[in-house]
Amino acid sequence: MRTTFIVETTGPACHEITGEVATWLKRSDAADGVLTLMIRHTSASLLIQENADPDVQADLLDWLDRVAPPADDPSMSWLRHVSEGPDDMPAHLKASVLPTSIQIPIADGVMQLGRWQGIYLVEHRDAPHRRQVSAVFLGDRSTRKSR
Amino acid sequence: MRTTFIVETTGPACHEITGEVATWLKRSDAADGVLTLMIRHTSASLLIQENADPDVQADLLDWLDRVAPPADDPSMSWLRHVSEGPDDMPAHLKASVLPTSIQIPIADGVMQLGRWQGIYLVEHRDAPHRRQVSAVFLGDRSTRKSR
Amino acid sequence: MRTTFIVETTGPACHEITGEVATWLKRSDAADGVLTLMIRHTSASLLIQENADPDVQADLLDWLDRVAPPADDPSMSWLRHVSEGPDDMPAHLKASVLPTSIQIPIADGVMQLGRWQGIYLVEHRDAPHRRQVSAVFLGDRSTRKSR
Repeated sequence: MRTTFIVETTGPACHEITGEVATWLKRSDAADGVLTLMIRHTSASLLIQENADPDVQADLLDWLDRVAPPADDPSMSWLRHVSEGPDDMPAHLKASVLPTSIQIPIADGVMQLGRWQGIYLVEHRDAPHRRQVSAVFLGDRSTRKSR
Repeated sequence: MRTTFIVETTGPACHEITGEVATWLKRSDAADGVLTLMIRHTSASLLIQENADPDVQADLLDWLDRVAPPADDPSMSWLRHVSEGPDDMPAHLKASVLPTSIQIPIADGVMQLGRWQGIYLVEHRDAPHRRQVSAVFLGDRSTRKSR
Repeated sequence: MRTTFIVETTGPACHEITGEVATWLKRSDAADGVLTLMIRHTSASLLIQENADPDVQADLLDWLDRVAPPADDPSMSWLRHVSEGPDDMPAHLKASVLPTSIQIPIADGVMQLGRWQGIYLVEHRDAPHRRQVSAVFLGDRSTRKSR
């Protein structure tokens, strides 16, 4: 039981996909098991983070820019991989420390996320990208249709 | 086959849960498969790290404080999400780069951890918290009872 | 269905293991499911990153050295865990923010990696090490042999 989620991005941002994922699990009659999500790219990430205050996302993106500044920042003049633009290598650095794959326990078809947890695709590049997230559910399927 | 582990925390620290997890696997007759653990919070983390010298944990916590200092540090005056205290947003930053979910191969009911690996819940907030870790084992169950 | 991959390292470097993993999946008749890889060490990591330009790997290693400098760097004089050499504790710090376990969706026996994604073992220590990666495939096995 698997699918691919598509997210169109237009620069660094956190895109919440929690609702889309929950809807797919429901339609697929997932019952008890584990959901695996993997982003098929090396300059964008998946992340489970707070879904209440959008300032958390803004602060996270700004902090990542301070930890891994653009290649045209004087502190990053030593970078080698710069031919695709100043945002390219820092995007790979951010993607190395944020998750590429995440796993979520599923019980009775519902993701066991905490109250404040949302699933995000985090874009690190400046240019628009079409991002793919590969999803697999492993476990038991519901038999409610036949009840 | 799933459960929830509870850890009561009282400020930044690494709490080892390896023994508790191993006991649960044994009681549940887990045989061969994969264990998934996910923390249901956005300001605390799960981590597999060295279980021998406690200095490793102390150094890790201090380093995280240097990479993501509290909001009342002059270098962090740009943070927006500060209403819940100076330790709040840095906790989210630390939780973004340390794991929220981890997976451990299980063989004959035993976690395939290396000799020096322990499983830790890492608290990033100053105030006491009751943390939940959702656990699922996927795979074959032992038939030893009937042997 | 599980195995252990061995990688011999000789200092900080990224070792690609994508081909070895793909070959094992093929030989094992894996069909649809999820592959879990876990490194059994606390001073080396697993990582999915770009497999095209080797400068990405060089830049990543240099950046990690800047974020977590060796213990003999003046900025790291506060480190406690230093008895095993200046590269020891920084290796644990790097291993805390890079993945210890990764998951990859498998469809028809093929890893659903993106075009530019490779699987790497990242060594953080200076001395040679023999590293073990524990692998488990969960899912359906191919029946092509009996077709």
